[in-house]
This record gives sequence, structure tokens and C-alpha cells, in this order.
Amino acid sequence: MNGAEALIRTAVASGVEVCFANPGTTEMHLVAALDAAPGMRAVLALFEGVVTGAADGYARMAGKPALTITHLGPGFANGIANLHNARRANSPVVNVIGDQATWHLAADAPLTSDIESLAKPVSVWVRKVKTAAEVGPGVAEAIAASQRAPGGVATLIVPSDCAWGEAPGPAKPVGVEGPAAVRGESIERVARTLRSGEPALILLGGTALSRRGLLAAARITAKSGARAMLITFPARVERGAGVPAYTKFPYFPEQGVELLGSVRHLVLAGAIEPVAFFGYPNVPSRLTPAGCQISVLATPEQDAVGALEALAEALGAGRNEGELAARADLAPATGKLTPETLGRTLAALLPENAIVVDESATSGAQFFALSSGAAPHSHLGLTGGAIGQGLPNAVGAAIACPDRRVISLQADGSGMYTLQALWTAARESLDLKTIVCANRMYRILKVELARADITHPGPAARALTDLGSPNLDWVSLARGMGVPGERAETAEALAAAIGRAFAERGPYLVEAVL
Amino acid sequence: MNGAEALIRTAVASGVEVCFANPGTTEMHLVAALDAAPGMRAVLALFEGVVTGAADGYARMAGKPALTITHLGPGFANGIANLHNARRANSPVVNVIGDQATWHLAADAPLTSDIESLAKPVSVWVRKVKTAAEVGPGVAEAIAASQRAPGGVATLIVPSDCAWGEAPGPAKPVGVEGPAAVRGESIERVARTLRSGEPALILLGGTALSRRGLLAAARITAKSGARAMLITFPARVERGAGVPAYTKFPYFPEQGVELLGSVRHLVLAGAIEPVAFFGYPNVPSRLTPAGCQISVLATPEQDAVGALEALAEALGAGRNEGELAARADLAPATGKLTPETLGRTLAALLPENAIVVDESATSGAQFFALSSGAAPHSHLGLTGGAIGQGLPNAVGAAIACPDRRVISLQADGSGMYTLQALWTAARESLDLKTIVCANRMYRILKVELARADITHPGPAARALTDLGSPNLDWVSLARGMGVPGERAETAEALAAAIGRAFAERGPYLVEAVL
Repeated sequence: MNGAEALIRTAVASGVEVCFANPGTTEMHLVAALDAAPGMRAVLALFEGVVTGAADGYARMAGKPALTITHLGPGFANGIANLHNARRANSPVVNVIGDQATWHLAADAPLTSDIESLAKPVSVWVRKVKTAAEVGPGVAEAIAASQRAPGGVATLIVPSDCAWGEAPGPAKPVGVEGPAAVRGESIERVARTLRSGEPALILLGGTALSRRGLLAAARITAKSGARAMLITFPARVERGAGVPAYTKFPYFPEQGVELLGSVRHLVLAGAIEPVAFFGYPNVPSRLTPAGCQISVLATPEQDAVGALEALAEALGAGRNEGELAARADLAPATGKLTPETLGRTLAALLPENAIVVDESATSGAQFFALSSGAAPHSHLGLTGGAIGQGLPNAVGAAIACPDRRVISLQADGSGMYTLQALWTAARESLDLKTIVCANRMYRILKVELARADITHPGPAARALTDLGSPNLDWVSLARGMGVPGERAETAEALAAAIGRAFAERGPYLVEAVL
Repeated sequence: MNGAEALIRTAVASGVEVCFANPGTTEMHLVAALDAAPGMRAVLALFEGVVTGAADGYARMAGKPALTITHLGPGFANGIANLHNARRANSPVVNVIGDQATWHLAADAPLTSDIESLAKPVSVWVRKVKTAAEVGPGVAEAIAASQRAPGGVATLIVPSDCAWGEAPGPAKPVGVEGPAAVRGESIERVARTLRSGEPALILLGGTALSRRGLLAAARITAKSGARAMLITFPARVERGAGVPAYTKFPYFPEQGVELLGSVRHLVLAGAIEPVAFFGYPNVPSRLTPAGCQISVLATPEQDAVGALEALAEALGAGRNEGELAARADLAPATGKLTPETLGRTLAALLPENAIVVDESATSGAQFFALSSGAAPHSHLGLTGGAIGQGLPNAVGAAIACPDRRVISLQADGSGMYTLQALWTAARESLDLKTIVCANRMYRILKVELARADITHPGPAARALTDLGSPNLDWVSLARGMGVPGERAETAEALAAAIGRAFAERGPYLVEAVL
């Protein structure tokens, strides 16, 4: 057995089932090993940003890592942006990067580069093996490292001679303990804070955004009078009827500062302290004012769900206490397509138990607000601000959950970053419905120009924030990758298009022209 | 004047005329500065791999750097693969990367990452400024660093407060000396080697691939009896009638070893010693056998053209000595489309003074061989092995040379990496004709599987090397980005399609189904 086969067999024994890949010459033995060792599904993507974004989406839904296989430094580099998002999502992802043979590195052949320098900024764990015998143990440790709470990106660099060289066999999987429980005294401390009746906000992040976490939070808020909010960029949150309809902490820092100005206690449950997404003149980095005290109920590394449930008990909240969202009587909108009519229409038509992958940027706020009364669903969002996450995440989510319908609500500018994901959706016959919010501009940048007091943008500023001239034709782009679709220019047309999209399984794209 | 305006004014004063960009919030003041300071053309690309690949193609044709503007670590990371190619091409490129405000870095906001760790593997020069006053001098030094022979990638990281903060004004451009001349004694040493009459091979790279360099090489080979070859991956080489018809050093290492086995002296002229592209079992890294002596006529940092001309003089070669390629009487091919009929047809129809950007991988070898008898043209190739170079390079070349027709000969698998370049070609109305070599597979990987003795690939190996199921429809992809086109399935149809493509200016795409 060579190192490559030891790697795949070790990964399968460790519970890894899927490998997203765009291999090259240095990964050919890994490719052959996928055939030699049963139990790993290999999914090709035509660009590494799709590979890594799919692994992130898979991890968010499956709760465990997929492998990525990429080709030396440059191939891996194409996947860094979505690994940055995975890092901010605390998603377990295991990268396997092929490299030049150990004895060939010194030749500095054209594809050679410093892979470790590229990998470190996005990885919690990086190792380069030096022998075939180290490959199996290396991947076992990488898988464990990716799963240690709160989850992260682990990167194993495998020189080609370590892949083709003889290995002693697969390695034993490395066990991982679950997240640490929060101690009773910490629970009691937060309980005292909430019992004080002083204005409190519970900020929910990480595992607190699971159904169990949200239900516990609802008990706590009902009993204590505290407010609860979701972090601004949840990796995954359960939404719709049957869970509490919490809103997200505001994006713009001035709004965050204002909100926290009326709060005496900020309780962090799986969340970290809110900071400005960007720095602006005369706006602080940290948004919590001096008069607001931070109480940590659970760090992202700790068991936030258990802590919330213990806190609910400590407060004496009833088992069924708490306000959950009721199913709203939503009807598709009519008239002009706007973020509001688009959001209303999708919320009304959302099927039960869907997965909504939302990289809709400025076009999706209304959908999020309205979706609290929609059918129960999982909502996955952009976490690290590296655009191009949505379509790949949706591919990974669809592979993790073949029995759930995936809806990719996708901004056009961001969608162009990793549009190759549509081809993988077609090849794998994924039940993935993409709705492109085609406003034909980088609208957030127009907002940011105004915020920077650039109120009369010149030709360069307009050219660099505008996606028109020519308009993108998403229906043709989708067709080019084997995905059928249509364009909708009114709310009625969107409802009809979504109806056709949902009529059968498989990928479909609707370009909603805003 | 703020730091951003100082940056743009300094760059313009230093001779930089073009900026390829995909900016975000932290770059809004740079965007505004492009309007405030005249003289810099701003070109938007919808993905950073296009931004950096265009800057590389621009540099190869313009002989000077463009700016790239990208957004923090993840935005920059999307451009790393093509910067890797630029690095291997020794192309001058100046990256300006926006970052979080200096005082906001510690907050570790979602988009924050270690940009320097990402930039170092592809850059000869990296600096992060700390104040607005450092921005102008920083970019002046970056521009100079990129132009120091043999040319390279320089990266300036500009925190947003340094862009919006008050700066003293533009900085003075930093002068750069040209490449160092090779000393007379070194020329004489190589002349003695060649006069010996022992079998010699002159390997031409870098500036030796210019028209002047090639003509000097032709004089030397005619006079001395030495052979000359091009490096395997020339960044740019002049080709066609009127320059010598040299072939490229072979790609596969066994062939390189065999070739050098019959050579007593390997003379490097702007080239580095040939090494294997990848390591294989029982094949050496360095291809030069013990019996072959290496003589360095000029390193890539030195003036290879001047050295070749001096060597020709030292050998007493006549001014017009040397065999130059004659214009061949080429006719478009007929029948089935194959790499051979495709190459013959394009070589026959190639217009005068075209720029051919060739990322055709396994489909283009015959074109290269036949193009020595075609109309004179510049040929740009993949340098660093990071696929996705071709379309962006072609965009940059077209912007550098608006009066020359650009032909992008593009493999389908590689083309999918950075297909967003087609949109920039449409927006900028570039005279860029793309011919996609659609063999619907990663053919080189099928070759490499066989080389790795994987003669009966299983389903995973087939799935990971095959681009079919579904086939890509490049005509629809192009239409989706505003580029007209058509599909050709025979050599006759290809000739007709190329005729229509060449009938008017502007972008056009032909999908040649192999």
C-alpha cells in the first residue's frame, strides 16, 4: 500500500465520506487511491474556489469534514478565499495539497512555491509530511484537528514521493473530545446578571444557532426579559416557523454602537464580542460602549447549547416557555422586482426543510426578515466577507443533504467569483435551485462610496462599481454549464419561475432582474 | 491630498498607465483617487485572477508594470495563482492591496488575515505602510522593485486609514537601472567554448526571446554550428516569418535528459538550468548529465540581448548571417478537427503582427510548430503552470497593444479557471479572439495517469480527469458575458468561424470541438 492509499483508507476509517477535488500531476496517486480504497465519494470542481467552498458548505450541514484535494501552491491558492470563510465559520475542513517530491523541491521547478506560507493564514493546523509512512498518521491528525471545537481548517501537504512511496498501512483514527462544558459557576454568574433585570442582550453564535440552542435561548429571554440576537454573519442558523424569530446584529458599526448603548449586559453565547466589519474614521473598532458589560456564557470553543439549556434551567424557565415564530400566511408578491418583492416571493414559496444558502448581499435583507415566518429551514450565510462563497457552499450542502432542497440566493457580483460551481451541480445532478439577484452592480460599494463622502463618483468610481456594460446573462452562463434556467423581470414571473424550478429535482437557475 | 491620491499620482508620474482592479470597501479612497488624479486607466475585472493575469499579460507586452488593486487577504488570494505565473515570467507587476485600518487590525474583524504571509510566496518585494505619508514613497519603491531586472511582482499593502489620511503629496519616482551588461571575459569564455566545435546547445530565455535576441542567436548558431532552443515555457517569444524557427526544450524530463545526453556544452542565455517540471520515480531533478558542461552567457538578471550580440561579434558572425524562417505557404486544413488541423488552420489564417496567448496545453503543440512559418507574431505562454493564465493574459495584452489583434488559444479546462476575463474583453471592446480547444478533458492528466502506471483508471480517476457530463457550452458562456461566438466541429467550420471572427474588431469566441 502506498502513502496515497494509506491516506484515503485512514480518512474513510475516520468517518470522512466525501472528497472535493481538482487534482493535478502531483495528486495522481491520490486519485488512483480513491479507486483502490472504497468508501470515498470524489467530486470534481472546475476551480479550487468551488472545491473549498463546497467543503465548507458540506461541513456546515454534515457537521464533519470533507477532504479537499488541490494541486501545489497555486491550485491551493485558488481555494484560499473560501477557506477564509470556512475559518470564520469554524467549519471542519481537511485540505490535502500535493507538492513536488521531497527531493525535487530544491530544483525550484516552475510550479514550486512556499505552500506553508499560503496555508497558514487560513489553517488552525498545517503539516508537511516527509515520508510515505507519515501520510496516514498525518491525515488522521488533520481530521482530528479540524474537528476540535469550534472546528477549523487543517492542511496536510503531501509531496508526491510520499504519495507513491510504500507505507505501512492506514493509520488509526485520532479521537476528538466534544466541546468543553461550561462550569456551573459561570452559568450561575450569567443567571445572576439576567435576574438583575438590567437591560441585557444575548448574542448567539456558533452552535447556539442550532435548533436546540435557539429553543433554549427562547426560554431564557421569555423568563428573564433579556433580548437575544444572532451574530451578524451566522455560518448556519435554523430559521422559519417553530424557532424564535431573532434578528441579526447590525452590520454597520454606528448601528451596533447605538444598539449596545441601551444595553447594560452583553451575554456572549458561542459568539465573540462584536467588532466593526471595517474601520471608519471616528468609529470605534470594538462596538461595546463603556457602560455595557460583557459576560461570556460560552466561548465558541465551549458547549454553547448545553450552557444555554443550563442557564434556562437555572433561571427556572419552563420547558415550553419562549416565543417561537408562527407560520406566516405569506403570499408571493406582485409587481416590480425589488429586494422586498423578491424576498416575499421566495419566503412564501420556500419548501419545508430547505437549505437556503444566502450570499445575496444587499438584495437579501428582506428575505431574511420575512423568512422567520416561512417554512422551517436552515440558513447558511457569508462568514468571512470573501465573496464567492454562496454557489460552492450550496453544492457542498446539497451533497451533504441529498434529501433536502437547496436554494442558493445569490448576488450577481459575488456569484461571478465561483460560477463554475454550477457545472458541478449539473454533473452531480444536485437538487440545487439558484436565484441570482441581478442588480447589475456592486451595490454595497456604492453605499460605501457614499459613506466615504464620495457623493459624486467620477467615471472610474462608476466603472469599478457597476456590473453593466455589458449586462451578465445568467441564463446563458447556466446553460453553458448544463444548468437549465430562465429570467424573471417581475415578481409574478419570479413566482412562476420558482414554481417551474421546484416542479422537479435537479439544478435550475432563475435570474431575478432587480 | 490623501494617501490614496498620493499613490495614484506617484504611479502616474512613474509611468504607470493602467490599473486592473476589483476593489472593495477598504479601497474606496483609491477608487476615488483614480478620478481625482488623471492619467490612469481603470479596468474592472469580475475576479481577481483576471486582475492579476491581465497585469501579467500587460507587462509582457508593454514592458512595464500595471497596478493591481485587490481587497484584503482573500481578494488578493484569488489573484495569487496568476501572480505565480507572473513571478515565473519575471513580469513587472505592482499589487496594491487594501487592508483594515491600522488601528482596526487588532479587532480581527471577519475579513482580516495575514496578507504578508499570502503575498511573500509570489513577491520579490512586500511592504505594508503604517502612515499616509509612507504611501507615495511606498508605491514609488514598489514600481522600481518590479522593474529591477529581470522584473518581478512587488506588493504594497495599504491600510485604509493610510489611504484616507492626509499625505504630503506625491513621491518622486525611483529610478531603475537596466540589466547589467555581461563582461567581455564571460563573452570570450563562451566564444571559446563554441569555437571548440564540441556539440553545444544554446538555451534562450527571458529577453533573449525578443526579436533582437533571436536574430543574434541565429548569427551565433550559423557561425558556430551550435544548436539553439527556446526554454520550455517562454513568457513571450517572437515567432513566425523573419525570426529563427527554434523549437522548445522538451517538457517531459526523460526527453530533456536524452537531448542533453548528446550535448557537450549547454549555454544559458537569459535562461536557467533546465529541471524537471515534476519529479518522477527514477528521473533526476536536474536534467543536465555529468558529461554536459553548463556555461552561463547571461543570467535572467543580465542583458542577454547585448551578450548574444557581443558573442556573435566575438565569433565573427556576419550581420545578416543565420537562418530565419520563411513565410510558409500554409492553407487551412480540412476534415476532422484535431490538434493538428486546428493548429494548421490557425497558423494559415494568423494575421500580421498578432499576439497569440497560448494556454492550449496538449492541444497547441502543432500550432506552435507550424507557426514558425506563419505571419510574424508575438507568442505568450503559460510560465508557472498555474492554469487560468491565458484569458486574463490576453485581456492585458490587448490593453497594452490596442493596435494589434490578440488571439487567445485556450484549453477548455484551463479556460474555466478565469472565464470571467471574457466579460472584461466585452466591456473594454478588446480586439480579442478566443479559440477554445474543447477536448472536454484534462488530457494532460490522462497522460500523467499513464505515466504513473495507472493504465486502467477506475471511476474516480475517470471522473476527476474528464470534463464531460455535461459538456461545457462555451458559446453560451461567452454570450453570458457579452461576447459573441460560435462552435466549430470541423476544420472547414473552424476556418469559416475564424474568418467571421477576424472580419471585424472586438471580442469573439470560437469553440473548436476536438
